[in-house]
Amino acid sequence: MSFVSTASKPKTAITPTREENYPQWYQQVIRAADLAENSPVRGCMVIKPWGYALWENMQRTLDGMFKETGHRNAYFPLFIPLSFMEREAEHVEGFAKECAVVTHHRLVPNPEGGLMPDPEAKLDEPLIVRPTSETIIGAMFAKWIESYRDLPLLINQWANVVRWELRTRLFLRTTEFLWQEGHTAHATKDEAVEETERMLDVYASFAEQYMAMPVLRGIKTAGERFPGAVETYCIEAMMQDRKALQAGTSHFLGQNFSKAADIQFLNDNGQRMHAWTTSWGVSTRLVGGMVMTHSDDDGLVIPPRLAPAHVVIIPVTFKADDPQAVMDYCNSLRDELRKIDFVDRRIEVEIDDRDIRGGEKTWQWIKRGAPIRLEIGPRDMADDSVFMARRDKSHKDKKGVKRSEFLDTVTTILQEMQDGMFNRALEFQQSNTAVIDTKEDFELFFAPPAVKENNPTPIHGGFALAHWCGDEAVENEINDQLGVTIRCIPLEDLADGPGTCPFTGKPSEKRVVWAKAY
Amino acid sequence: MSFVSTASKPKTAITPTREENYPQWYQQVIRAADLAENSPVRGCMVIKPWGYALWENMQRTLDGMFKETGHRNAYFPLFIPLSFMEREAEHVEGFAKECAVVTHHRLVPNPEGGLMPDPEAKLDEPLIVRPTSETIIGAMFAKWIESYRDLPLLINQWANVVRWELRTRLFLRTTEFLWQEGHTAHATKDEAVEETERMLDVYASFAEQYMAMPVLRGIKTAGERFPGAVETYCIEAMMQDRKALQAGTSHFLGQNFSKAADIQFLNDNGQRMHAWTTSWGVSTRLVGGMVMTHSDDDGLVIPPRLAPAHVVIIPVTFKADDPQAVMDYCNSLRDELRKIDFVDRRIEVEIDDRDIRGGEKTWQWIKRGAPIRLEIGPRDMADDSVFMARRDKSHKDKKGVKRSEFLDTVTTILQEMQDGMFNRALEFQQSNTAVIDTKEDFELFFAPPAVKENNPTPIHGGFALAHWCGDEAVENEINDQLGVTIRCIPLEDLADGPGTCPFTGKPSEKRVVWAKAY
Repeated sequence: MSFVSTASKPKTAITPTREENYPQWYQQVIRAADLAENSPVRGCMVIKPWGYALWENMQRTLDGMFKETGHRNAYFPLFIPLSFMEREAEHVEGFAKECAVVTHHRLVPNPEGGLMPDPEAKLDEPLIVRPTSETIIGAMFAKWIESYRDLPLLINQWANVVRWELRTRLFLRTTEFLWQEGHTAHATKDEAVEETERMLDVYASFAEQYMAMPVLRGIKTAGERFPGAVETYCIEAMMQDRKALQAGTSHFLGQNFSKAADIQFLNDNGQRMHAWTTSWGVSTRLVGGMVMTHSDDDGLVIPPRLAPAHVVIIPVTFKADDPQAVMDYCNSLRDELRKIDFVDRRIEVEIDDRDIRGGEKTWQWIKRGAPIRLEIGPRDMADDSVFMARRDKSHKDKKGVKRSEFLDTVTTILQEMQDGMFNRALEFQQSNTAVIDTKEDFELFFAPPAVKENNPTPIHGGFALAHWCGDEAVENEINDQLGVTIRCIPLEDLADGPGTCPFTGKPSEKRVVWAKAY
Repeated sequence: MSFVSTASKPKTAITPTREENYPQWYQQVIRAADLAENSPVRGCMVIKPWGYALWENMQRTLDGMFKETGHRNAYFPLFIPLSFMEREAEHVEGFAKECAVVTHHRLVPNPEGGLMPDPEAKLDEPLIVRPTSETIIGAMFAKWIESYRDLPLLINQWANVVRWELRTRLFLRTTEFLWQEGHTAHATKDEAVEETERMLDVYASFAEQYMAMPVLRGIKTAGERFPGAVETYCIEAMMQDRKALQAGTSHFLGQNFSKAADIQFLNDNGQRMHAWTTSWGVSTRLVGGMVMTHSDDDGLVIPPRLAPAHVVIIPVTFKADDPQAVMDYCNSLRDELRKIDFVDRRIEVEIDDRDIRGGEKTWQWIKRGAPIRLEIGPRDMADDSVFMARRDKSHKDKKGVKRSEFLDTVTTILQEMQDGMFNRALEFQQSNTAVIDTKEDFELFFAPPAVKENNPTPIHGGFALAHWCGDEAVENEINDQLGVTIRCIPLEDLADGPGTCPFTGKPSEKRVVWAKAY
């Protein structure tokens, strides 16, 4: 019996598998793909070249989308004076517990050896390493905006931010992370709300079209709102452990920050008014979301539109009479591929000519998630063909293809993979979303299965569409009891219309999305 | 008399002029071009959209050059534990006086009102906001490198860094600045030196071909070396006040940092060896260098290859019967221009359809340094032409050109402007460089002219090519007496061969470059 069960379990490149231990699987996929690792600095990660290239591709696309919608990049200081943070009461309250504070500007020899902060160089006012930049950018906007002619002011910043997190996880939650933060000011409430929604749509389009990650668009409940915001919009994605990941947020800030920073303008009647502001951001967390949406038990799977290399060529020269001829064939194929555009950039090709075994190379590229692998040896060359494997199929599923045919079809194949990944993820999300009408069914849906050895968090749950009366106490109680939160009040009706809250029996306007979450 | 002198002085858009007060002229050019401004955070600047777009263009080109030479981008933590900084004695000595130190990770209510760093959340070990990343990157390299097969390791990082400067100046010297820092490890000394020189050449090519800024390539004296380096290579440019600007540095670090961080590898004989490392960087200081190399008394002049917009179109619709027809004509011209490539990107076009006076627009774009301005009204449209002005000619020098001719010649015009700017800057540098053989001539060359009202620093001096015996005491004395330093020991012989040090009478191998500097 034990023989049969071992034989039937397919060997995987990643141990443990998703089913065996999802959190550990995630760490192992990142390690095997060489995306990032923990640094000696508590809670801060090092993003390695393959991981950083993914982020660069995300940046390039998002940056283009921001510019298309009229935004311009700028750069604001890393440090925020404490008094600026204090200007918006809810805001500072929200971030006070996780601030890195700069207090000195010089080191001097420590009488006990080594160096220490110079007591003579203590700052009069502590500086906060920005956890977000509403307050400092607001102070600049107040200087820049004089009249309605200066509005809307549409600015974006690519930057690092710091939030002192106690429990960190690569990409998903780190003390320092990279992000973009959009900050805009408008003459009217309607325009600001429109902007908030527009940027949410930009995020949703990016997630779905580039990351192949389906998302729900919605509004946060008051308890989950950005500190200081009037309304927080979000996109929520389902990971393969059926937990939700908040992948991007867009905040309508009303006049809260414009009053705190005194951002005023003269309207066309010559009256002084406070502007209406927004802010919106996505971060390197998206890389974690991409990993958890698509990767399998053999490692990372990258949506072709974000791949640092679409095609990896592995020259097989050890049996070749003329290894250089094989290399030349590979190089010329690379040059031809690079002339082809896929979506908005050229096809990127990596030739792996390292002096290590071919099998090791193949498995490295599988684990790194390269969409297409080509093995090319003397026989393929003689036949003017390539030996192709796709990351979305079994690693044994390889086939010879004429070189010209490959060149003709490569963009079709890449788009097919992109679409396939999106559809698979959408099907997964839909098949793990349940319409739930009673408290009992709700509890059953989120009840964790029996814990198995070495797997403290077996996969369970999903998105529950259930009615909610709007009472924050209900939300808090369910969070305390089940660890389930309202991910969003969806912008569209995801099921029927109004109904009854299963927890209180009170009326509910529409179903909200409940889930366990990162 | 006063009437004549006023009339003969041409009106300029920038006050004061370069001659009248160079440092103030620099501040005014930056303000008038809307590049950047001081922030409420001591020593930190805000880079505004037009300035940031310049930096983005620099980044894009440099990033491509780094990738062409085999480097990959990665990202390392903002914070460096104090103990890491202490590992290399000269290094920490060099940066201790200007470190921003994080000591707490939480804020709590201050009994006296407001918030304060939480005494309960004091860090066991202070964190330094990176002034540069040799030590933290070295610690990661030590983990990543096992054998000679892992070498060379060629990494670059785009990041912000902080050095607590007492006297700051927009772009040239700010507490926080943006930069890239390359960090590489090699198996042999020769390969590391070769890398150091290769990246210096990359910087020199970029400065000359993109910034149109001629540079001298050389080596720093011991006193001007990067703290911890064996040798610091640099490129030095001459600003229009004849002072030198160090525009980029490339450091051969020997085994100093690999010993400090224990970066070892097994060579092909199975012996453990310390790697040889390099680091190299350029920063937002380059934007300041570009401003001071090319701008004139009417404001910024941007080399076309770095221009955020190559062409600015100003529609002149106030007299038009059909304003929309003029706008359509402008839009279609923009679309055609955007299909044309100039160097390695498409031509960027800005249409200025703001509701302000045409003259005000024109002067704004002159002050912002846009290379080509087109004014287009109903008559130009009827004639199928454009009314063109170039930033490198007088603002009165405008001419009508057929639309098709403009489209055919636009890239030629832009390249002509680029070349013209480089040649003018080179001529300026050469005509203000003197071969000097006596102490008296040296002192005369650097003697400041009589200070005029409101101009504490009249333009004077230049590059002096003088012999030097190699004695650091001479260097220090001249710096103390005249404020003149050795900018570099040039890589090529800039004049004759060996000679005699005019300060000591001792023999000298070759002339070095002396100048006052930023």
